[in-house]
Amino acid sequence: MHAIAVGRDDRTPRVVERDPPTPASGEALVRVLRVGVDGTDHAVIAGDHGGFPEGADELVLGHEAVGVVVDANDTDLDEGAVVAPTVRRPPAGGPNPYFDRGEPDMAPPGGYVERGIDGADGYMAEYVTSPAADLVELPDDLADYGFLVEPVSVVEKAFELAAAARSSFRWEPDTALVLGNGPLGLLAVAALTDGATTAGHYDTVYCLGQRDPDHPSVRVLDRFDAAYVDARDTPLAAFADAYEPADLVVEATGHPPHAVESLDALAPNGVAALLGVPEGTHEESVPLAHVHRDAVLSNKAVVGSVNSNARHFRAAADALADMDTDFLDALTTVAPAFDDPAAAFREDETTIKTAVELATYEER
Amino acid sequence: MHAIAVGRDDRTPRVVERDPPTPASGEALVRVLRVGVDGTDHAVIAGDHGGFPEGADELVLGHEAVGVVVDANDTDLDEGAVVAPTVRRPPAGGPNPYFDRGEPDMAPPGGYVERGIDGADGYMAEYVTSPAADLVELPDDLADYGFLVEPVSVVEKAFELAAAARSSFRWEPDTALVLGNGPLGLLAVAALTDGATTAGHYDTVYCLGQRDPDHPSVRVLDRFDAAYVDARDTPLAAFADAYEPADLVVEATGHPPHAVESLDALAPNGVAALLGVPEGTHEESVPLAHVHRDAVLSNKAVVGSVNSNARHFRAAADALADMDTDFLDALTTVAPAFDDPAAAFREDETTIKTAVELATYEER
Repeated sequence: MHAIAVGRDDRTPRVVERDPPTPASGEALVRVLRVGVDGTDHAVIAGDHGGFPEGADELVLGHEAVGVVVDANDTDLDEGAVVAPTVRRPPAGGPNPYFDRGEPDMAPPGGYVERGIDGADGYMAEYVTSPAADLVELPDDLADYGFLVEPVSVVEKAFELAAAARSSFRWEPDTALVLGNGPLGLLAVAALTDGATTAGHYDTVYCLGQRDPDHPSVRVLDRFDAAYVDARDTPLAAFADAYEPADLVVEATGHPPHAVESLDALAPNGVAALLGVPEGTHEESVPLAHVHRDAVLSNKAVVGSVNSNARHFRAAADALADMDTDFLDALTTVAPAFDDPAAAFREDETTIKTAVELATYEER
Repeated sequence: MHAIAVGRDDRTPRVVERDPPTPASGEALVRVLRVGVDGTDHAVIAGDHGGFPEGADELVLGHEAVGVVVDANDTDLDEGAVVAPTVRRPPAGGPNPYFDRGEPDMAPPGGYVERGIDGADGYMAEYVTSPAADLVELPDDLADYGFLVEPVSVVEKAFELAAAARSSFRWEPDTALVLGNGPLGLLAVAALTDGATTAGHYDTVYCLGQRDPDHPSVRVLDRFDAAYVDARDTPLAAFADAYEPADLVVEATGHPPHAVESLDALAPNGVAALLGVPEGTHEESVPLAHVHRDAVLSNKAVVGSVNSNARHFRAAADALADMDTDFLDALTTVAPAFDDPAAAFREDETTIKTAVELATYEER
């Protein structure tokens, strides 16, 4: 079968040939339909994040997948079921308690491998196997969009952590600010404008970006009751004064100063959820007395959030099923998998989110 | 009656004469026994924090009080009951929803006055009145120590916020690091080494300070199963490597860099609770990409926490009742109220925590 991989020596994504995998006991065989591309893939390709499977010189890419169960093997899955696989798997030493209790997303660095990212082949292959417990069943009509369950699940986990951080008192948020209008930011906006979320109900949602109004990722915001704020005119540090303080900030860019500037955008008792992963180094002078004092005197909170578990995948499937398919279509550019595999990973000002298509639902 | 106040023009604490207050409906009259002195009092006296009651040129000091109900008036309180009053009261415009639901500690800046601190006379007076709902009943044998209920309640609220921030997953902390060995830090150590707390059970507790081993505030740590770390040898940024990462950090100094350095001391999934209030300004270069990335990839959290409500006062009364009275005696220096009122507020290397005594329990 075909797969798309990077090599240690040549980091250009290319088609490689692999034997189709055979499911072990407890695993199912999945025909992959679509795999999303995100910033983590770019960091993996560039060699800035993740790593190769032990002893291997190639890594099959892709961690945002949707597929169809074609061999349920000895599992309880239904053949034909549309599924999205979670990302983390036990490290070489075997499962640890985080896996045992279904919270591999809370395992510390080193306590897991990540398919398509770090130490385990990903999902850009015609067929993959996975433990049934790591395959979350989706409604059939999410076959085209189910590659978005993983990124939405990352948002859902952040919502859950943010709400938990405010659960010891009555928190009645109504204003949210999403930092970034990349795919993750836009999916957060879609979830927040859709009504009730794990993180509460928001009457007012802002999205801060730095693209021109005619960019597709800005135009798509017209579909939502969300206000776009151009960070080139109103930087994050000026947001609260120019607009209003936010009860929830969702950081989806990884821009390093946002870690502390988010606090300035928060209303008293607010919480900032950090999802974006900064690369490299960035030092900057910070008014620490102000930041520290404000956090204390206004009971503010910051939560970092990485990855997601099967519970978040299920919440994401529900959230995705509620999203307007016109939005999901406007978000997505479908790229064929094997003709020019590097094309799907090229940065491009006309696309928002690329989905590599390995098979259509009709071909399943 | 006598009270101890500062004036707009002369900020030296002095004895003033006031008419004993008359309780309004719903209020009780309390004879004050002891009032603790803390860093907030020093900031109030220096004019760096808080302010005078509207139209007044004097502020009666003191927000950490214990007293005895001498006139229950039309309330359900028992005359003779030992009580600790909470600190926040509604602002001039009247109660807001935070007060209505018993969470004045979550009211935003401007949404409250604070007795003895900001806009309302405090408790360093022979008699004070208070709404019954703001008087938390204590066991009689806390009459000598009940002035510590307020600071312990501040720690209890921080524990509650910290635990809430980790409540969306299974969090099993076992290592805590308290920053600061002033009274608040020592009370946090006492609570954390006493067994189960709102923030979990800790087998290992460290306390970071910068005093010599023979200082009373360091020697008192010998009473606990807690390790003192001299920050002059091991600064916070080096703590995790030199000792071990902590699941919980309790910041009780207000040293501005701790707001971000606390993250470096945290284990994956850990939480830092910030209680100390920095004064002034302090800017410093911060490795923001590192801080931001670490918070995300290790699911770390930071919560700011200020003040406390009656629920935290009740938890604090329970925690205080469990503390060794030898420790509480070693912590406390009792100062007479009216002979030399400024003496109780002088910084002094031989005392840890001063309690101004207005009356003894026997005199009630």
